[in-house]
Formats: sequence, structure tokens, C-alpha cells
Amino acid sequence: MPAPRTFPPEETLDKLFAELNNAGRWGPDDELGTLNYISAKKRVAAASLVRTGRALSIARDLNTTQSASNPSPVRHTMCYQAHEPIGAVDELALGMHGFALTHLDAIAHVYRGQDVYNGRKAGVVATPGGLACCDILVQKDGIFTRGVLLNIAAVRGLPWLSPDQGVYAADLDAAERRQSVRVESGDAIFVYTGLQKREAAEGPENLGQRVGIMPDAIKWMHEREVAVYSGDCVDAFPNPYSPRYAIYFHAIALAAMGLILLDIPALEPLVKLCEELNRGDFLLTMAPLRIKGGTGSPVNPIALF
Amino acid sequence: MPAPRTFPPEETLDKLFAELNNAGRWGPDDELGTLNYISAKKRVAAASLVRTGRALSIARDLNTTQSASNPSPVRHTMCYQAHEPIGAVDELALGMHGFALTHLDAIAHVYRGQDVYNGRKAGVVATPGGLACCDILVQKDGIFTRGVLLNIAAVRGLPWLSPDQGVYAADLDAAERRQSVRVESGDAIFVYTGLQKREAAEGPENLGQRVGIMPDAIKWMHEREVAVYSGDCVDAFPNPYSPRYAIYFHAIALAAMGLILLDIPALEPLVKLCEELNRGDFLLTMAPLRIKGGTGSPVNPIALF
Amino acid sequence: MPAPRTFPPEETLDKLFAELNNAGRWGPDDELGTLNYISAKKRVAAASLVRTGRALSIARDLNTTQSASNPSPVRHTMCYQAHEPIGAVDELALGMHGFALTHLDAIAHVYRGQDVYNGRKAGVVATPGGLACCDILVQKDGIFTRGVLLNIAAVRGLPWLSPDQGVYAADLDAAERRQSVRVESGDAIFVYTGLQKREAAEGPENLGQRVGIMPDAIKWMHEREVAVYSGDCVDAFPNPYSPRYAIYFHAIALAAMGLILLDIPALEPLVKLCEELNRGDFLLTMAPLRIKGGTGSPVNPIALF
Amino acid sequence: MPAPRTFPPEETLDKLFAELNNAGRWGPDDELGTLNYISAKKRVAAASLVRTGRALSIARDLNTTQSASNPSPVRHTMCYQAHEPIGAVDELALGMHGFALTHLDAIAHVYRGQDVYNGRKAGVVATPGGLACCDILVQKDGIFTRGVLLNIAAVRGLPWLSPDQGVYAADLDAAERRQSVRVESGDAIFVYTGLQKREAAEGPENLGQRVGIMPDAIKWMHEREVAVYSGDCVDAFPNPYSPRYAIYFHAIALAAMGLILLDIPALEPLVKLCEELNRGDFLLTMAPLRIKGGTGSPVNPIALF
Repeated sequence: MPAPRTFPPEETLDKLFAELNNAGRWGPDDELGTLNYISAKKRVAAASLVRTGRALSIARDLNTTQSASNPSPVRHTMCYQAHEPIGAVDELALGMHGFALTHLDAIAHVYRGQDVYNGRKAGVVATPGGLACCDILVQKDGIFTRGVLLNIAAVRGLPWLSPDQGVYAADLDAAERRQSVRVESGDAIFVYTGLQKREAAEGPENLGQRVGIMPDAIKWMHEREVAVYSGDCVDAFPNPYSPRYAIYFHAIALAAMGLILLDIPALEPLVKLCEELNRGDFLLTMAPLRIKGGTGSPVNPIALF
Repeated sequence: MPAPRTFPPEETLDKLFAELNNAGRWGPDDELGTLNYISAKKRVAAASLVRTGRALSIARDLNTTQSASNPSPVRHTMCYQAHEPIGAVDELALGMHGFALTHLDAIAHVYRGQDVYNGRKAGVVATPGGLACCDILVQKDGIFTRGVLLNIAAVRGLPWLSPDQGVYAADLDAAERRQSVRVESGDAIFVYTGLQKREAAEGPENLGQRVGIMPDAIKWMHEREVAVYSGDCVDAFPNPYSPRYAIYFHAIALAAMGLILLDIPALEPLVKLCEELNRGDFLLTMAPLRIKGGTGSPVNPIALF
Repeated sequence: MPAPRTFPPEETLDKLFAELNNAGRWGPDDELGTLNYISAKKRVAAASLVRTGRALSIARDLNTTQSASNPSPVRHTMCYQAHEPIGAVDELALGMHGFALTHLDAIAHVYRGQDVYNGRKAGVVATPGGLACCDILVQKDGIFTRGVLLNIAAVRGLPWLSPDQGVYAADLDAAERRQSVRVESGDAIFVYTGLQKREAAEGPENLGQRVGIMPDAIKWMHEREVAVYSGDCVDAFPNPYSPRYAIYFHAIALAAMGLILLDIPALEPLVKLCEELNRGDFLLTMAPLRIKGGTGSPVNPIALF
Repeated sequence: MPAPRTFPPEETLDKLFAELNNAGRWGPDDELGTLNYISAKKRVAAASLVRTGRALSIARDLNTTQSASNPSPVRHTMCYQAHEPIGAVDELALGMHGFALTHLDAIAHVYRGQDVYNGRKAGVVATPGGLACCDILVQKDGIFTRGVLLNIAAVRGLPWLSPDQGVYAADLDAAERRQSVRVESGDAIFVYTGLQKREAAEGPENLGQRVGIMPDAIKWMHEREVAVYSGDCVDAFPNPYSPRYAIYFHAIALAAMGLILLDIPALEPLVKLCEELNRGDFLLTMAPLRIKGGTGSPVNPIALF
């Protein structure tokens, strides 16, 4: 059994926050963050990854059942039309985040203290009517780029990581080598630690005990110019840091780097298909709903092979 | 000024409903309808349309303002987190159809009387908990195919069609010729009549007076094996038929053909970009939210050039 | 152990529906039903029941937890105001009926086939925008009358009735005698069978097996000119009748008699206070929210002694 | 035309906040505030005011139409039941405050800076799940007391007060004299300035320009031991004070006095009936929904004469 993860002191996070900070990198008004890495040329190259025509959703079904990990479930209601209706209509209501919904984060969704991406302040950005900038609407033209699967469970030789583990830069390197793929500027990475397998075997994840992305792995993403992070692990719980870093990966990724985060993907079918096709990369397409001021959006990302 | 459209008698619709009916075509249990036209090979070919890497959303912003054409607007609410919040979260609630929201229809969304696609009956398909089959979830792996713009306003030599006009098969033929493109099996077509230009000049559309897709154009789509219809016109209003055909295009498209409908797209920017690039086709990508039992889904379709 | 209830044939219900029918009794346009029994004089008399000044809610707390008997729970959401808020605000969403919410029914809430109170038809009354008449708004000036507790568990000498039992006219007579009270025109009755005690001992009620009001007890209410029925039992389950009488008590009470129904009261504290004060009657006050077209309303009925 | 109101300096409000503060008056744990004035004896006396049996709602209809003064309207949705439904059901969603909904405030709804009633702090009281104390649930047994109408428009000899006016202690005194009534401990007062008449003549109120309750009138309410304030005017707008007193009447009433506030009543019918019956007092009954943690509740208050 591997030793549990160990965290660097909070000062290391402060240094990282400064070092990885993309403020000003794409201009003082930039709201796109790491989406800037996805050039038109990158999109053309990504399209060429569609070789078999296989398509696969990486989203979970919207979950309407209340549980410990889904305290405010999606509500789906059929509506009355007439005694002799000509069709069926319905309504949908959902919270944009949480641990049950596959969703994209707006860059201003999480702060580090008052700090928001590109030198902004939360007190100005967050208003009762929605985010005044860095909202989800800035991502309206969608994300179309190369996706790369990084199978950490496989490189560790385990079916799944236990919740006291972390994902380090070295794990990401090893996962690249295993799949003979190299993460490049503008890629979307999908980090897999076997969570769905673990839940199938051991029951629903305890949200207070979660595998975490370790600080040096965040730096790795910065150096590789990753455009989108997704994975079945995000912030470590329990959290060893102060409230400024209550969810330290979200805080550094969003507020310093402007790194786009795709939370709560369904990776098990993706892992299977990658193995079946013996591939580690694919075309990723997704687009948020056009919610002005929104802090995020439910999405259904599609992988094409 | 062209003469107003004239409608065939209702018996013609009954005949069309039988003639264009895809029941049994893809098996007795099929729930995908014309998505069956989109083969893996079609997807590979569609990907090759990405030549410049330009990406464009074809959705409207979610509209939170109540109006005659948006009586039940989207609700977007920021949520309270704490006195010293670490981020911003929000909730979203919306009706799935209407004239303000860019959305995909589930195939069982509209009936012809009791008839639902592939020989099913509404009384069985529509339940208080959602559609028992042909719901939006069957489209979960998304739509990735060639999109073709058919600019009817241009072939008519008008900035926009007036609301008493119809779009005929001959218009679709003419639009193909104008753009030197031919609609093929599995394509998604986007029929443009200049609605947004008309609204900019004359104010919001009167929902009781709408340009309509004429019956012979529906037959055209069947013959060409169109996979997805979208456009700034759908069913003609006022409706000349009985309640069985209250929205006759939706009824025949969904309940007979299983034709996928993308309602309320934003076509003006698409028309502009097609003109700029001198292209009539592009890669279309979109994916509905995974709503079990859902009658439709808000989407943000992306065109890539 | 008493023998389980036995139901009369469905023809008896048809006869009752005709016999107890108040259509036309208060004019062809009446929408108030048995609220007509509550005269101004009745209100004055009811006010005189306030002798100790004790006040007691008969409602349950709104229940935000999903469960078998509460599949669509109330949603209560705190809203974001500002980074330095001057107060707290929130939102509430709820379904108007079900087995978890204390609520008043609109008279047109339930039909017998197509029949709605006072000769109306459901196809006309129920519209997508709400009930066109006999909605909850007609009860807007509230209910202020004498309440009478009828403790059926006590007259049966049991802590609670088992779910295969029924409440008969003879039980109501016996409960009156036990408390030396006589139900009169315009009264609101509260029938107690010990449900909350049973649930405390045996767990949540199985909604498919419920104590029921028997047909002869409905006739009793008609003869006594009861204005409001409330109780911890309503319709018997499993239901022995056809869909026209799927919930036969609701159907006859609402659609024939126009009898006002207060569903899902919290009777345990009321029973205790009645015993403490040695009283069987009290002043009942409640008023629905003013929902135009509404099929019901959450309420918080108050008993005053 | 009377001179516009003049406001005392903010220090006067600080002094008032201390002077009128009921912290500790009813114990360190009290959450009921001025409801403590309504004794059992008071309820018995109030019941005796029911002499004619006339009942009248003082609520507005729930307003589902979006407008400047109702930006987030109530949503009322009919729900699908079945192709042959046995009844009609619906859902309701609403924000608890605003200027369109008749509602009761929870005592912790508004702060003065961080100060909440009875020495509490907002950072502790307001949680993501609701108010931890002084929520609306503490008012669950309802309000049953004497209501007194104070017609300020009449004593000023005007059909309505213009929005630059204030209501002073002297106005309240004059209104008592006019109606030969004296406000006593535990009463609910209804201050009428003719707003609905003004709106009928001049259009919807500009929410930035509102008649206000003046500081000396708040002191009057404290001295008279008013239990419930209601009226067609509340806080003056524009507000002359700092954010601590953004809505100074709410801040002092709720956070210092624990004075119960019934916002947005419909007073016009009440004024008419009082005149018709030549009465200035009546029995007031109302009860909030039992919302644990709620910051308020929609209510339908009923006046009985």
C-alpha cells in the first residue's frame, strides 16, 4: 500500500499562484484564459484525429435522485398541455456545480481570497445578476481540440487509487509514456484514477475523502500549456490549507492560470474505448449553454475517434 | 410582392405521413430516426470540412426576459454560499421548447393524433416521469455531421421572406444551385429566410404569422435523407389544418420520419461567415444534455469551417 | 384484530355521486362548494371558541428531503445578494399536492372521469395556464370556522388503525359521543386514526396501503353539512375501483359535493392539546395563497382554543 | 404642496438602534421579538372583535408577470399527469421578498451591518442552508391579534402622499384620533398612504422614490409596543444613509426591535371595508408556511370584522 500523499506548506501555493499566473499574458482584458492555447491551426489538427468515426459521450446522465453526493438534484418536470395534447413538453432546473453533474466552470467561478483571473476582484466580478466578466458565456464558441487520456490507475498498476493518494507530475509523465503520447499546447487532458470502478466496488465516494491533484501536477499543466483539465479527481479532501485555498486546485487553475475545468466527467466508457482502439488521443467537442453571467454550464462533451 | 402560399388539402398530409414514414426502416425498436443516416464514415468525412479552424456558435443566448414570444423565460439565480464565499454558484431553470431557446427536439416530442415515431402511441410513450422512449437521451452521443446552409432569402432575391410565404422544394433546389452544393444523406440543413433581419427592421415576429416549410419541402428532405432540419422557419402560422396537424411539419418530421429538429437557431452570424469564407457547408457539432425521459434539450451547436 | 374493510360495488359510488351532488345548490355559477355553509353568523360563533388564547399550528414543516413518500421535495434556496449583504433572501419551489405537504385542494383539483363540480367538464376547466374556475383563488378570503376533532383511534380503543381499516359513519358518530360534541353545518372536521403514532412505531406509511374514508362516511359528511374535511386518512389504498374512482373520496368530495379538503395535516399535537384542555372543538383559521388558476395551496392552519 | 421630508443625521439612527433595542428583553435566546407582546389574553380579546362575521383578504394575487417592480415573477406551472388524467396538479416557485408579493419577514432577514436581533451576528446566522435562528419557522403558530388601520392619507387630507413624503409619529397620533382608536401592546398596525390609488392614477410606483416611515415613527411603534407593522410604505427611497442603513426601517425594526414586518399588503379593500363598517380595528389572522431556515414566507392575511 503506497504512503499517503504529503502536501507542501501553504507558502508553496502562494508561490505557485504567482508563478503560474497568466494575468496579462493575453492582454489586460482577456477573459478566455487557457482557451487562448487553442488556435485555429490546433482545431484543424484536432479534426484530423477523427479516423474511425466512433463518437462517445463523456457526460453522466443528469441525476434527479437526492443523495449525500447530490443534495440538490436536477428537477425534471413534465408539463400539462391540454386534455388532448399534440405533444409532450417539460421543464428542467439544476444547480450548475456539485459532484453529480458533468459541467464546465466559468473562469470566475472560484476565487483565491478576493482574487479572480487576470487581476480582477470578486467583489466587483460577482453580482446578484451574475458574473460581470469571465462568465461561462465567453466560452460560447465551444471547445474543439485534442483530448488526451492519462490513465494514472494503469501506471500505478492499480484498479483505482485510494482516497488518500495524490496525482503528481511524475504520474502524468508516466501516463504519457505508457500511451506513447505527449501533451501539447492546447490539449484537453483527462486524468483517470479509477473512481467509477472504486465506487462500483466500495460504494459512493465519501466527498470528504478524495484523491487530489498535487501542486506539482498543476505546474506541469502550466508548462505543457494544457487548455482544459478534466478528471475523476480534482481537489484533495480533507483540505490541509486555509480557506483561501479551500479548493486549492480550482483556486490556482481558475484564478491564477485561467485554466478551463470540466468537472465530473464519466471516464469509464472513455477508458474502455481508448483501450479497444488502442488510442490515447481523440477529438474533444463541447460547448456550454449561452448563459450570460453564468458561473458554469452543464455540458455533454463528445469524444470522436 | 409574391402571392401568399397555398396549402394542399389535409388528405395530402395523410398521404405524406404514410409515404415518408420510416417506421420499421431501422428495425421495430429504433429510436434514432434519421440519426441513422449519420454513419461513422459520414463523421470522418464531416471532420475533413474543418479547413480554416474557425468556430462559430449557432445558438441564441438564453433569454431571461419575459415577452410575448418568451412567456416563461429562463430563470438564472445566483446562490448564497457564505459571508466570505470562496466562489460563485448559480442555478438555472428553463422550459425545453418555445420560440426563444435554441433546442433539440426528442423524436417523441410531437404526435400526429396519438401516433408517435415507429408505430408507437402517445398514451404509452408519454408518462408523468418523462418519455418512455424516443426521449432526448437516445441522442446522447451527439450529432457530428456536415451542415449545409440553404439561403432561401438569397434565391428569392429578398432580404427576408414575409410571414405569408412558404419554403418549397423548388426553393431548396435553387439554394443548392446558388451555393454549388448538394445535400446528401446524413446532412444537417439550415434553412434561412432572413427572420432576424426582418425582426431587426420590423420588430419581434408575431408568432401567429410565421413563414412555413411547405409539404413538398418535407418530401424533399425525405428523399435527400436529411438527418437534421434546422431553420428560422418551421411550421406555418396560421395553421390551416385540424389539431392532428396543428404543427404539421413537426408532426410529419418527428412522428413519421423520425427527423431530428434543431429549433430556434441563430442563423445571421452563420450566413455572414459562410459569405465571408465563400462556403455553403461546414462541420456541425452538438450534443444534448443527458436528460432521461426528456422531450428536448437546450443546446449550443457549433459550426466549424 | 378487526376484520379488514369491505367496499360496496362501484354502482354504490355512482349512486352516491348523484345523491350527494351539490350541483346547482348554490346557483349555476357557484365555485365555493361547501364553503357556502360557513355563514357570517357561523364565523362570529366560531370566534367565541377562543377562550384560553392558546394557538397551535396543524401543518407539517415543509419537507425538503427526497423519499418514497416525498419524491419531489420542496426546494429552498438561499440567494446571493452581494459580497457585503444587507440581509438574507431565498427562494421556494414546491408541488402543490402529494403526501408530504399540508395543503388545501382547489375544488377542481380532482375529477370523476371528466366531471368537475357544479356540472363542469375537465376538458374546459383544466388549461395549460391553470384552472379556469373552481381554482384555489376562489377561497381567497380564507376559512374561519369551528374545527371539531374526531378521534377514531380512541373510539376503537386502539393506538392507531391498521392500514386495512376504514372509517365508517358509525365511527364518526361514536367519536362525537366520546367528546360530547355534535358536528354542525359549516364545521371543519379532523379525523384522527393515529397515523403519526403508527409511523413512529412502524416506520413511514406505505402509500399503497392506507386507511380509507368509507363511502357511508362521505354521506354522513354531506348530511351534517361539513364544510371542510381534514384527517390523517383520506382515500383507501389499494383502490378497489376503476380509474373514474381512482381516489374515490377525493372524486366524490370535490367533484360532486364541492367539499373543501385540507390534506396532510399534523394531528398529533392537536390531539394532545385537545386532551390537555379537555376540548373537542376550537376555532380553525387558514387561508390559501392567492394563486390564480391554482389547483391547491400550501397552508399553515392554526387552531385556537 | 407640503415640504419634502427631512432626515436626521445617521447618528440619530445609531442612537435609536440602541434605544429601541429589545436584545435581552425576552431572554438571551429569544427569537420571537415583538410577537412576545401578543399574549394569550390578547388573543382572546382580539377574537371578540369578530362581530359581523365579514372576512377579507389583505394579500395581493401572486404576480406571474415580469415587470420593473417584479423582475423575478412567481412561476406557476401545470404538470402533466396522464393522457387521461384524474385531476390537475401544479407547481409553484417564488422569491420570498420583493415589491410584488405579500409576505412576512423573518426577524433575521435584514441586518444592521453584521448585527442581527438579540445580539446575534449575520456571519453565524446566515448559512447556505438557511437562517440558523430567527427564521420564519419560529412564527409557525401564526399571528392572531388586533389589527388597527391608520389612514395617513385621510389625516393629511390627500388622496395619497407623494413619494417625497414621510410618515411621522405625529401622523400616527392624528390617525388614531381620527378613528377614535388607540394602538395598544400587541396590536398590528396598517399604515395607509394611498399608494394603490396613486398607482391607479399615475402608474406603477418608481421603486427608487418611495414614501418612507420616518425615524420618530419607529420610536412611536416601540413605545406603543406594536407587534406587527404593515403598510403601503416602508423604507424611504432614495436612501440618505450609508449601507448599514440601506433600508433603515427594516434594519432598526428587525435587527434592533425584533418587530414583525408584513410587507406589500393590499390595503385598498381594507380601507373601503373599514369605512363601510365605520371601524378602525379588526381581528387579524395569518400564518407563515413552515419553512425551516426561511427568510420570510408568502402569506394571505385575513381581516375579520
